[in-house]
Amino acid sequence: MEHKLALIGCGTVGQGLLQILHDKKDYLRDAFGFEARVVAISDKLKGSLLVPEGIDIPAVLELLGQGKSLSDYPKVLPGQTEPLDPLDMIERTDADIVAEMTYTDIKTGEPATSYIKKALRTGKHVVTSNKGPAALHYREIRELARQNALQFRIEGTVMSGTPVFHLAEAGLAGNAVLEFKGILNGTTNFILSKMETEGMDYGPALALAQKLGYAEADPTADVEGFDALAKVVILSNVLLGGSLKTTDVPCKGISAITKADVEAAKAQGLRYKLIGHAKIDGGVVTASVSPQKLPLSDPLAGVMGAQNALSLQTDLMGKITIQGAGAGKIETGFSILSDILAIHRC
Amino acid sequence: MEHKLALIGCGTVGQGLLQILHDKKDYLRDAFGFEARVVAISDKLKGSLLVPEGIDIPAVLELLGQGKSLSDYPKVLPGQTEPLDPLDMIERTDADIVAEMTYTDIKTGEPATSYIKKALRTGKHVVTSNKGPAALHYREIRELARQNALQFRIEGTVMSGTPVFHLAEAGLAGNAVLEFKGILNGTTNFILSKMETEGMDYGPALALAQKLGYAEADPTADVEGFDALAKVVILSNVLLGGSLKTTDVPCKGISAITKADVEAAKAQGLRYKLIGHAKIDGGVVTASVSPQKLPLSDPLAGVMGAQNALSLQTDLMGKITIQGAGAGKIETGFSILSDILAIHRC
Repeated sequence: MEHKLALIGCGTVGQGLLQILHDKKDYLRDAFGFEARVVAISDKLKGSLLVPEGIDIPAVLELLGQGKSLSDYPKVLPGQTEPLDPLDMIERTDADIVAEMTYTDIKTGEPATSYIKKALRTGKHVVTSNKGPAALHYREIRELARQNALQFRIEGTVMSGTPVFHLAEAGLAGNAVLEFKGILNGTTNFILSKMETEGMDYGPALALAQKLGYAEADPTADVEGFDALAKVVILSNVLLGGSLKTTDVPCKGISAITKADVEAAKAQGLRYKLIGHAKIDGGVVTASVSPQKLPLSDPLAGVMGAQNALSLQTDLMGKITIQGAGAGKIETGFSILSDILAIHRC
Repeated sequence: MEHKLALIGCGTVGQGLLQILHDKKDYLRDAFGFEARVVAISDKLKGSLLVPEGIDIPAVLELLGQGKSLSDYPKVLPGQTEPLDPLDMIERTDADIVAEMTYTDIKTGEPATSYIKKALRTGKHVVTSNKGPAALHYREIRELARQNALQFRIEGTVMSGTPVFHLAEAGLAGNAVLEFKGILNGTTNFILSKMETEGMDYGPALALAQKLGYAEADPTADVEGFDALAKVVILSNVLLGGSLKTTDVPCKGISAITKADVEAAKAQGLRYKLIGHAKIDGGVVTASVSPQKLPLSDPLAGVMGAQNALSLQTDLMGKITIQGAGAGKIETGFSILSDILAIHRC
């Protein structure tokens, strides 16, 4: 079966997705009977492209790799590169799936939330890697999807393509998740790992993370725990059935942790990790983000460097832990593909 | 949708499944629209029961808990407790799913393989926790299922209900698995953990495992690696597309490992684990089972006690590791339910 895809946002994640769709075209067709035609791209910076017969992926990746605009796409018909706002693009394309991959605004969830609602109202499934809509408006969007008999899928919002939502939905279906603890931000885990294994102080470890591209020039969202907070809210609301807002969750980052703190913990056989935690008790969901000193016997204690991991406490299977990448162009591009394949399977 | 289930074998795993089906009846109906009617049970030791209108699960669990036979099932109609061989039962029941949960014979795969083939030939999906058929006849059975447009599912054959096949099939679909390394036997991991953390020698650690019920009176299958070997063959053939036989895989257990070996490894910052390993290289799949000294940075090194874990090396997502229970009545009973729910979703 062929799916028609519209990409809203075509930065790192979108280009990762396009790369995989191109490289794995034959494999996906042979293994799953899956074919994808990318019929529309809209990106605020890179322009737009509306090509119902399907874009030439290598040509688009070459353009974008050269920093050019989609308006330079060769051999188009009149109107195909006419600048279109994402909302207009979603309205006009005949795609059956919209992949929403714009930047996260964790305060408003916009403009992504408007894009997603427009897609669902015009009959298109939505997959997204954007934490804003999932953290702020999950229930409302899910209900809108349900009313339209469409899917709203968010694998890439937490731990990139490491399949946490697929895990809960497929392999662990039938379990109740009672509690989770996770290392949900790779940057802070990298910094804490360097502080322990190489005896670095916080400042130099952060500077190294920035030099290696793990941390932004303004590292606030990572080191103060706000990125992990958004993910905790998403996981709480999806896995525990909560209705938390980001303001409901106490959040403390790692910027006050010193080399001496890390060494004192180590001397006690403990290891600092920035832990996103939530549990349901008597129907009430509570959550937090804070640095925790874990015993080395905890499956999360061994997770070093920029990796992510999540432990789910379930009623039937006890504790299940999954560890993998938490970021990356191909890894997050894959998260989008994994959700598209889930729609394909249904 | 209601499914009619036939249980072949009703020991620990079958009773675990019945317990979950009973305890979670309302939840499974409300969350997934899933209802199950158990219409047949056949167990070589416990007798048989053919009740098309559905058995009374608590009554059966009470009988079996008291060590009684299914022929003591109350209020049955004539013929319903007539002793039926599993093959006759599979022939006569109108179940749409057969759960095959008899004992593993890793040399022949029988009689389970005959039961499974009979079920597929009479139009029934099959789910099994039995390593024999999956390790010895996976391709043949899968092809028979395909020809009959039925499913043959084996989640419980490796790591009980910790979802390794679901993970590969759903969340990681689209990835090629290139290599795996796993701690696939909880008994040996328990023994090695005790040898390291409590300085026990092999003999006393094995005796403790036997006392706690982790190891059998004859521990050969666990400690010589044969149980892990069967799982490596299954994983290789399912995840890597191999066609290995158990005799193709070099297998070494842990019985020759001494306290001194464990301590020498520890002094080097390494930890002994019994590792099942396989990789595909140039289209050729090779595999092994052997004790390995892992650096503590390996995600498998932190897996202590009777837990299991599996690291998959994939082309898109890099290394993904899942850790969880490897055995248990409810955990393995759940593995059967997870496969039944997968059939239900299709």
